[in-house]
Amino acid sequence: MEGFFACYYEGVKEMEDELNSLEKIKQESPLIYHITNNVVKNDVANVTLAIGASPIMSDHPKEAEEITQLASALVLNTGTIHPNSAEAMLLAGKTANKKGIPVVLDPVGVGATSYRKEIMIRILEEIEITAIKGNAGEIATLAGTAWKTKGVDAGEGEADLVESAKQLANKHNCLVGLSGEVDIVTDGKTTYQVKNGHPMMAQITGSGCMLSGVVGSFLSVSKDETLEVLLQAFISFAVAGEKAANHSSVRGTGSFRSTFIDELYLLTDEDIKKNRKVEEI
Amino acid sequence: MEGFFACYYEGVKEMEDELNSLEKIKQESPLIYHITNNVVKNDVANVTLAIGASPIMSDHPKEAEEITQLASALVLNTGTIHPNSAEAMLLAGKTANKKGIPVVLDPVGVGATSYRKEIMIRILEEIEITAIKGNAGEIATLAGTAWKTKGVDAGEGEADLVESAKQLANKHNCLVGLSGEVDIVTDGKTTYQVKNGHPMMAQITGSGCMLSGVVGSFLSVSKDETLEVLLQAFISFAVAGEKAANHSSVRGTGSFRSTFIDELYLLTDEDIKKNRKVEEI
Amino acid sequence: MEGFFACYYEGVKEMEDELNSLEKIKQESPLIYHITNNVVKNDVANVTLAIGASPIMSDHPKEAEEITQLASALVLNTGTIHPNSAEAMLLAGKTANKKGIPVVLDPVGVGATSYRKEIMIRILEEIEITAIKGNAGEIATLAGTAWKTKGVDAGEGEADLVESAKQLANKHNCLVGLSGEVDIVTDGKTTYQVKNGHPMMAQITGSGCMLSGVVGSFLSVSKDETLEVLLQAFISFAVAGEKAANHSSVRGTGSFRSTFIDELYLLTDEDIKKNRKVEEI
Repeated sequence: MEGFFACYYEGVKEMEDELNSLEKIKQESPLIYHITNNVVKNDVANVTLAIGASPIMSDHPKEAEEITQLASALVLNTGTIHPNSAEAMLLAGKTANKKGIPVVLDPVGVGATSYRKEIMIRILEEIEITAIKGNAGEIATLAGTAWKTKGVDAGEGEADLVESAKQLANKHNCLVGLSGEVDIVTDGKTTYQVKNGHPMMAQITGSGCMLSGVVGSFLSVSKDETLEVLLQAFISFAVAGEKAANHSSVRGTGSFRSTFIDELYLLTDEDIKKNRKVEEI
Repeated sequence: MEGFFACYYEGVKEMEDELNSLEKIKQESPLIYHITNNVVKNDVANVTLAIGASPIMSDHPKEAEEITQLASALVLNTGTIHPNSAEAMLLAGKTANKKGIPVVLDPVGVGATSYRKEIMIRILEEIEITAIKGNAGEIATLAGTAWKTKGVDAGEGEADLVESAKQLANKHNCLVGLSGEVDIVTDGKTTYQVKNGHPMMAQITGSGCMLSGVVGSFLSVSKDETLEVLLQAFISFAVAGEKAANHSSVRGTGSFRSTFIDELYLLTDEDIKKNRKVEEI
Repeated sequence: MEGFFACYYEGVKEMEDELNSLEKIKQESPLIYHITNNVVKNDVANVTLAIGASPIMSDHPKEAEEITQLASALVLNTGTIHPNSAEAMLLAGKTANKKGIPVVLDPVGVGATSYRKEIMIRILEEIEITAIKGNAGEIATLAGTAWKTKGVDAGEGEADLVESAKQLANKHNCLVGLSGEVDIVTDGKTTYQVKNGHPMMAQITGSGCMLSGVVGSFLSVSKDETLEVLLQAFISFAVAGEKAANHSSVRGTGSFRSTFIDELYLLTDEDIKKNRKVEEI
C-alpha cells in the first residue's frame, strides 16, 4: 500500500505542498453561510468552528440575501428541505454568484423524492455552483447515470462513479467531490482518489454534511487552484476521521463523534501533507 | 433483587431467547423514517445508526408519502409539532398503513397544549398505530385516566400506570410501552415490567425520543411476536443506559450522552439476554 | 491577579454568599420555556437539564400561550428566527408579562439582518424584558452605540461596552449581561465584571445560547436581588467553562462540549463562591 502511494504524482505534490488552507482559515476566520438540514445544524456549526471558520445559519428567505452579503462562502444542503429553505437557497445562491463567493451544493437525498429533484433542477439551472459534494447515489442521480445503491460490487461501482463524477463536473462546469470508501475529487479533467478515512465516519449522522461545511470553509480562503483546495478539504476531513477512529478513547459512535471534532480542531496543514493517501487517476 | 428476577417467567424467556433483533437490524439495515421534533433529531439519527438501522428525516408533507414508500418503519413524535409536520405525519401514517409497515407513535407533551391533543386525536383516529411509546403523563393523558404528574407517590402511581397502559392498548388495539423508573410493556393482555435502566437517562434531553427510534428499528425487522420484540427494544435501551451510567468515563450528563450511544453501538442480543430484569405481571 | 480579586467588594460578597440558586433550581426543577434557534436546541435543553431545571421547546404560535402558562421562565433567542417563531415569541412574551415570570432575551445576530432588527424592535416595544443577554456586537447594536466588530482593540472596546450595557439597561429598565472575554453584568446603576471563563467557550456553537438558558433557570427561582442572581448565573457558566477547559480529558472542542455539560451538571453553589473572579466597577 505504501509503495502504491509513493508513486504519488510529483507535480501535484508540489502544488499541494504550497497550500496552507487551514492556516489561512484560522487567520481569516471566514464567515460561512450554511442553509442546511435540521438534523445536522449543530454538528456542522461545530465542525466549521473547529477548523477555524465562523458559521452562520438561517433558512428563511427574508434573511438570505443580507446574510450572503456578509459571508465568504455559501453551503446549500437539501436534507429536510421545505419551500421556505428552498426559496432561501435560490436567493442566497444568486446573491453569492453576483458577489463572486464560492457556492457548495450538497444534494442530500436527491434521489429520495420528486420534490428534492425538482428543487435541485432549479438550483442547478439558476445558480452557478463551485463544487458539488455528494455520496455515490447522489452524484449518480445528478449525473443521470444508472447506478444501483444496492447489489453493486465495489470494483464495478468505483469505475462507474469516477465516470459519473467527471460527467457531472463537465455538465455543470464545476468541481465534484464524491465521498465514499474511496473519495473521488475532480474538475472533469483532472481526477484524484483519496484513500484516507474510516468506515466509522459513515456511522454517525451528517458526516457528509460536515464535509460540505469544511469544503465551503476551504474554498472561501482560496483564490485559485480550487481543485487542489477541494482535494485538500477532502483529505483533511478523512485524515481527521481516521485519527479519531484510531484514538484510544473511542469505543463507539458516540465517543467517535466528539473525538472527530477534536481531531478537526487539532488538525494542521502539516498533518494533511504527512498523512494523505492520494492518487491522480 | 436477583432472587426476584430468578422467578422470570420461563415461557417468555424461551420465546425471547429465540429473538435476535439486533443481529437482524445490523444485517438488514432497515430505513426508519422519523418525523420528529427539532430538539432531538441529531441524537435520534445517531441512535438509529448506532444500533445498525438507517434514519431518514423530513417533516414536510411534500415528501411524506414518497419517503414512507422507501421506509421499513415510521416513527411519529409530536414534540415541537407544527401544521406542516402534523400534515406530514397524517400522510406518512396513512401510506405506512397501506404499505403494512409498523408505525410508532411518541405523543411527546400531549398533555401540554390543546393543539397537541387535537393533532393526537386525529392521528389516533386516522392511523393504525403499531406501538405507542410514552412517559407516565403522556400514556395517562391518552388513556384518559386521572393522573397527577406531581404529588403522586411511586406505589400508587405504578398501579395506575399499568392499568392506563393496558387500557390504552385495548382502546387502540396496539402495543403500549411506558418508559419510567420501571418500564411497562403491554398489548393489553400480557404485561411486562422492565427494571433495567438508570436515572441518568431522564437527565438528558430526548432519551424517550431515542427509545422510540429504537422501537421503530426493532419492529421493522419483526414479522410476528411484536410484543416480545417491543419488550426487547425496551430492555436493549435500558441495558445500554445502565451500562453507560456505570462506565468509568462518565462524570455527568455530557459524557453520559456520548457513552450511551457507544453502548447502544456495542450492544448485542446476548447482552440483552444476560442483563434483562423483566417480569410478567 | 489574585491580589486584584482579593479586593472584591465585601458588601456584594456577603449578599452573594446567601444566594443558593443552584440548590433551589435542583429542588424546584422549574420548567423553562425556550423559543430558540434550530442550531442549539439540543445543547440548550441538555444544559437546562444539567443544572437541574426542565426545558420545554416549541416555536409555533399555536402553542406559545399555553406553554407559557406552564412555565417558570421564558427565554427568547432570535437565531434562525422566522415569522412563526417571531409570532410565538410575541405571544409568549405577553403571556409571561401578565403572569409575572422572568423573560430573558438573547438577541442573536441582531446586527446581521434588517428582519432581525425589525423583530427585535417589536419585542422590545411590546414585551417587558427582565434580562438581555448578548455578546459585544449584539449589545452595542441594541444600545445604538457605534461599535466595530473588527479592528477595535480590547481596551477601547471594554470601556465602550460597559457604557453600552449600562445604557441598554437604563433604556429598557432591565438587566443586561454581556458575555465576552470579560463578562459585564449590570442593572444600569451597579455593574460587575466577571473574569472567569475560557476562550474555548467561544469555539463551540451556541455557548451564548446555553448561557441564556442558564440565566432563565436562575431567574426563575429568584424573587428579588435579580442583579445578583444574574451575576451568579454568569459566574456559574464561566466557572463550569474554565473547569471543563482545564479537565484532563479535553483535547479539543468536541470533548470540551461534553465536559462542559458534565461540569454544569456537577457544579454547586459552593463552587461558584470559591472560584468567582468578580469585581464591581
